[in-house]
Amino acid sequence: MKRESRLVRWIWWTVVVTALFLLGFCIGWFSKRSKATANNHKTSSKYLVEFLDEMRPDLIRDHLRKFTRLPHLAGTEQNLKYAEEIMKEWRDFGLDSVEMVPYDILLSYPNKSQPNYISIVDHSGKEVFNTSLAEPVPQGYEDVSNIVPPYSAYSPKGHPEGDLVYVNYGRTEDFLQLEREMNISVTGKIVIVRYGKIFRGNKVKNAMSAGAKGVIMFSDPADYWATGVKPYPDGWNLPGGGAQRGNVLNLNGAGDPLTPGYPAKEYTYRLNPEEGVGLPKIPVHPIGFHDATHLLKNMGGQIPPNNWKGALNVSYKTGPGFTGDFKSQKVRMNIYSNNQVSRIYNVIGKIRGALEPDRYVILGGHRDAWVFGGIDPMSGAAVVHETVRSAGKLLKRGWRPRRTVVFASWDAEEFGLLGSTEWAEDNARLLQERAVAYINADSAIEGMYTLRVDCTPSLHTLVYDLTKQISSPEDGEEGVSLYESWHKRDNWTNDRDAPRISKLGSGSDFEAYFIRLGIAAGRARYTKNKKTERYSSYPVYHSVYETFEIVERFYDPTFRRLRAVAQVRGGLIFLLADSQVLPLDANEYADSLRKYADSIAHLAQTHAELMKTYNVSFESLFSAVKNFTNAAKDFHERLQTLDKEDPLQVRIMNDQLMYLERAFIDPLGLPGRPFYRHVIFAPSSHNKYAGESFPGIYDALFDIENSADPDKAWREVKRQISIAAFTVHAAAMTLTPPA
Amino acid sequence: MKRESRLVRWIWWTVVVTALFLLGFCIGWFSKRSKATANNHKTSSKYLVEFLDEMRPDLIRDHLRKFTRLPHLAGTEQNLKYAEEIMKEWRDFGLDSVEMVPYDILLSYPNKSQPNYISIVDHSGKEVFNTSLAEPVPQGYEDVSNIVPPYSAYSPKGHPEGDLVYVNYGRTEDFLQLEREMNISVTGKIVIVRYGKIFRGNKVKNAMSAGAKGVIMFSDPADYWATGVKPYPDGWNLPGGGAQRGNVLNLNGAGDPLTPGYPAKEYTYRLNPEEGVGLPKIPVHPIGFHDATHLLKNMGGQIPPNNWKGALNVSYKTGPGFTGDFKSQKVRMNIYSNNQVSRIYNVIGKIRGALEPDRYVILGGHRDAWVFGGIDPMSGAAVVHETVRSAGKLLKRGWRPRRTVVFASWDAEEFGLLGSTEWAEDNARLLQERAVAYINADSAIEGMYTLRVDCTPSLHTLVYDLTKQISSPEDGEEGVSLYESWHKRDNWTNDRDAPRISKLGSGSDFEAYFIRLGIAAGRARYTKNKKTERYSSYPVYHSVYETFEIVERFYDPTFRRLRAVAQVRGGLIFLLADSQVLPLDANEYADSLRKYADSIAHLAQTHAELMKTYNVSFESLFSAVKNFTNAAKDFHERLQTLDKEDPLQVRIMNDQLMYLERAFIDPLGLPGRPFYRHVIFAPSSHNKYAGESFPGIYDALFDIENSADPDKAWREVKRQISIAAFTVHAAAMTLTPPA
Repeated sequence: MKRESRLVRWIWWTVVVTALFLLGFCIGWFSKRSKATANNHKTSSKYLVEFLDEMRPDLIRDHLRKFTRLPHLAGTEQNLKYAEEIMKEWRDFGLDSVEMVPYDILLSYPNKSQPNYISIVDHSGKEVFNTSLAEPVPQGYEDVSNIVPPYSAYSPKGHPEGDLVYVNYGRTEDFLQLEREMNISVTGKIVIVRYGKIFRGNKVKNAMSAGAKGVIMFSDPADYWATGVKPYPDGWNLPGGGAQRGNVLNLNGAGDPLTPGYPAKEYTYRLNPEEGVGLPKIPVHPIGFHDATHLLKNMGGQIPPNNWKGALNVSYKTGPGFTGDFKSQKVRMNIYSNNQVSRIYNVIGKIRGALEPDRYVILGGHRDAWVFGGIDPMSGAAVVHETVRSAGKLLKRGWRPRRTVVFASWDAEEFGLLGSTEWAEDNARLLQERAVAYINADSAIEGMYTLRVDCTPSLHTLVYDLTKQISSPEDGEEGVSLYESWHKRDNWTNDRDAPRISKLGSGSDFEAYFIRLGIAAGRARYTKNKKTERYSSYPVYHSVYETFEIVERFYDPTFRRLRAVAQVRGGLIFLLADSQVLPLDANEYADSLRKYADSIAHLAQTHAELMKTYNVSFESLFSAVKNFTNAAKDFHERLQTLDKEDPLQVRIMNDQLMYLERAFIDPLGLPGRPFYRHVIFAPSSHNKYAGESFPGIYDALFDIENSADPDKAWREVKRQISIAAFTVHAAAMTLTPPA
Repeated sequence: MKRESRLVRWIWWTVVVTALFLLGFCIGWFSKRSKATANNHKTSSKYLVEFLDEMRPDLIRDHLRKFTRLPHLAGTEQNLKYAEEIMKEWRDFGLDSVEMVPYDILLSYPNKSQPNYISIVDHSGKEVFNTSLAEPVPQGYEDVSNIVPPYSAYSPKGHPEGDLVYVNYGRTEDFLQLEREMNISVTGKIVIVRYGKIFRGNKVKNAMSAGAKGVIMFSDPADYWATGVKPYPDGWNLPGGGAQRGNVLNLNGAGDPLTPGYPAKEYTYRLNPEEGVGLPKIPVHPIGFHDATHLLKNMGGQIPPNNWKGALNVSYKTGPGFTGDFKSQKVRMNIYSNNQVSRIYNVIGKIRGALEPDRYVILGGHRDAWVFGGIDPMSGAAVVHETVRSAGKLLKRGWRPRRTVVFASWDAEEFGLLGSTEWAEDNARLLQERAVAYINADSAIEGMYTLRVDCTPSLHTLVYDLTKQISSPEDGEEGVSLYESWHKRDNWTNDRDAPRISKLGSGSDFEAYFIRLGIAAGRARYTKNKKTERYSSYPVYHSVYETFEIVERFYDPTFRRLRAVAQVRGGLIFLLADSQVLPLDANEYADSLRKYADSIAHLAQTHAELMKTYNVSFESLFSAVKNFTNAAKDFHERLQTLDKEDPLQVRIMNDQLMYLERAFIDPLGLPGRPFYRHVIFAPSSHNKYAGESFPGIYDALFDIENSADPDKAWREVKRQISIAAFTVHAAAMTLTPPA
């Protein structure tokens, strides 16, 4: 008995010992497993809520107020001062590092002692009317100095004199109509075009190509006037004395005109000023409608009415071209602006990633403004500022994102996206290997209606998921999500029941990141109702009337709309930086590719006969899209079975997601546009603001019916289809198992 | 007492239980930690020894024998048959996957019914002497069909007739000497140049630029004749009837001439044949020395002797240019070759990586041969074959490398590196994100003296470490390492006591991987003694005499030299694929950059006065190199303290090492050479075979003293220095902590 009892006890002991050991082992094993993964995973969504809730309308208001008191044009002392303040505050908010990154780039300013203006001259050459030298300064800002008058940045100096020809919006089609249908040549003449529809640089390029010797641009109430709204300060319409500043470059993504492809550092080689990329060769100047009326009213043909009291139905707008006898009057442009190499400053702040410090999620927006920048860009900068503050709060509570977050306050966006492009050039190697996504933060509001999102297709799903977690900022929509509010106001199209998301064009700082480097990108802002509000951007765009007050009084009195935008931009950054598996959706890319392929093939079908003659087929492209669709589907199925406990396997699939956008980059670039390298998306060759899908094919097809050498032209179409098909195939390959 | 004893027992119990639990926990914790890392780490070096020991000279001999029985020119049925055999055997050896990858590329063949030849013509235009139509076939191969006669691939058809001008090696300096010192124009004439010193395509380009209307190339015994060695089959010298085949393209890395930048798939757009990249515009033809003597002996001036019995000291070699009266004789070229789009086949085999399947280590070499390919390339292909066999053995024993290994049997290397370049274009996106290194496997032997390694600087240390673990193949060197044997025969220079390693040039399949994509690359082979053996490559190069027997009888009777090369190539692949931390050395790159910067600055100093005049300084480059040196040093110090148990941290630092080479790529390419994108290394513009460091600066400085526009020329020098400085800076940035 005693022996047996001892035996039992020993057995008992052994079992207990083993069990305990195993228990310990198992706990050790599994607690180790989950350390790097699940832990981070669980708390992340809790922190997202905290991150979004922390953002406060009143603080966004304060930031906006603070950074719109003084004009802060790129290259000026005041813009450096704001940069220093932002750097200091971002440090105070708790970022791990904040630095100032300068570049020396070509800027353009009016000559302070010789203002630019346009005259009507009589027979003897005497100036009988001169346009105004500045906009009437809004109330409360009368004592502010350094308000730069309206000008076209990078216009060369010059005094061209000649007959005036009106060419509507100065679009490619306007010039073609003028030339082909109306048989009017602008060679040696000065053209006057109205702002709107396309980027002003494209207007100038078209005018140059047509042989004009000067360009005048004016803001037409039809394009910058909302019905039933008063001009500022009584409403948010553009006063008749207001005019739109802006650069008139055709950079095609080159960045600083003197250092294309390389960052403009002190030691960097610079082109001679006359070799600069994209510089206009003829004088250009913007005027307001009051002045425009004077110029236009003396023209023959249909005379534009001068009833400056509200939205106009002006009969001269039916097409380009006043053939008219100019009542023996001519205009003279007097432009004295200077180009000069000046120092600009980006502010770059970082939160170091906890697990993958070498993966970057970037939130960038510009700081430089034409004058006060009440909307453009400080409504966006205020939102970024609040995002940084909220992130800093979380850091203090122990949060640290999985990946590195980079915040950027860009300089000299208004001069051709220069600060952001130089930084992209400077950091191209790091970005192409490490950047997960770039979210842009230009003007956060351009209307009072609903959300507007432009992004790469792989971000669609994330945008929808996120906006369901954000509240609508609209009065009377308590408890309604931003998604629902947006969906109700701007449903996609017939083929999809979801809020509309558009392609990215250009005209803001995401360009180098998305179009040159192939980094997934997106932008979000509050916008107008496109169906009823037909003016371009917003009426006071790039005028002195973009003040803090216009936002506070009209656009967002509660600052809840700006908070919603902050939550969208910030939330995107948060989820991209902190999700274990990157929230990018290759299936959405597949859907979009299919739409774009259908669309370009449909466009080509307008030349069905020639397609047959020249043996042009879209078969290879459709086959590639099918291939991509299958690869994407398989990829996301495999992602379902991913062992999330294995850090290498997670990293490998994340890398596939991250590099998907990169796969669409063609190192050879688009024809004649070496810095536009994205095969699926590029700014339209006819309007930088608009995004074109399959731009290589589109451009090859453009106006092909009038080609001088149809054989060559159709060969180029085939070449572009081949490049598109290969690129989509290649992108599909990146989604298949890596070995 | 009893209570106390119970208490004691309880305490005892608790302690034991806790201790056991903790023991279990610790074992669980730490055994988990080491699973993915140390485990792999320990066994890897054991497997390396097995991998190297498994390689057998007799089997390398068998492989070589098997694949050199028949001519297997690219695009022929026999070369497809060899591809199929290789595919089958690689599968049998045990690779995870083997596939055949076809492309349809532009090849060039002689016209079978109208052979190419060159004639001496008399006054009346009658052909009084014709060059031979083929080489005398070596013994044992008399019944073999499909031996392509010597020709210059891609020569256009044509029958130019004219005076003959001798231009030595046809180098840039030879043409300059002819033009500037001897005042001889070759315009409208036919030039005859000897093979050697530079790539034949460069000779043709120079002749075209000089205005020649045809090029004849011949093998001079001074360049293709080793002292005291008999011509084949009694020795390994080139018989007088032998001639060198070869392409005469100037592709500058474009790959298939009709599809530059894109893989030549079925659907791919092709340029019109006349637009093809790098195609010569004038007829070209190669001849042997017997024929050359006939052409040269009738020329005026110094007459080359015709004593074909051994190495010659021919007086005509003192410089280019026979000014001569041509004894009223002319030559006529009769070229009937055709360019045609043909299908080629790469064989791609893979071993899937165990932990990082998305990291690729590539061993690639070509299979296509001009005739039998006894040396070029099958000595290399046999070595790859044996490497695959040995790797397969290890797989069966349970080994699996950490990373994926890719084995490639390229096609159409002889036609301009086409098979490898098309595959690189096809897989560019995968390769640029995932390729760790590319090891090239062309001819494994070109001499009987010692090892020759050309590689990127970051591989230096690995090459040294590895060769210390391999035995010398030389008789009488038992127990001596390959490193020692090599070191003894070819010490670097005064500044370093180690075996010499050279820069990569081009002329083999690594080009697209290294120069276009920026993947760390290297090559190794057995070579001659450069100090005493002054002929180019090896005497029978690209002739019909490159047989199995020439290797077995003369070059490597024991096949131990080939085994040593197999061990070097295979060992590099093994260590790159299986080391936990990538065996790449950024410090070596820093050292090399310093040397190259010193060297190019020294070269520029020959124009010290002009440097001052035009304000040219290398300061920015030296500063960048210093910066890089510090970053590399810091990086390797941090690497010492890397937590190797943390898979993400290991991956992050490995990524920095992997992407280091990529950082030297400039997406804009070198001036006029868009596919040569490596800022540190490019094939010389004057000789594709040679590597030039800082090629952009070198080319800008070249012949600058004769520039027509010195201001512009020196501006270009400054621009290139600026690009080099920026690139080195940018590469340094990639080595700093990622956030």
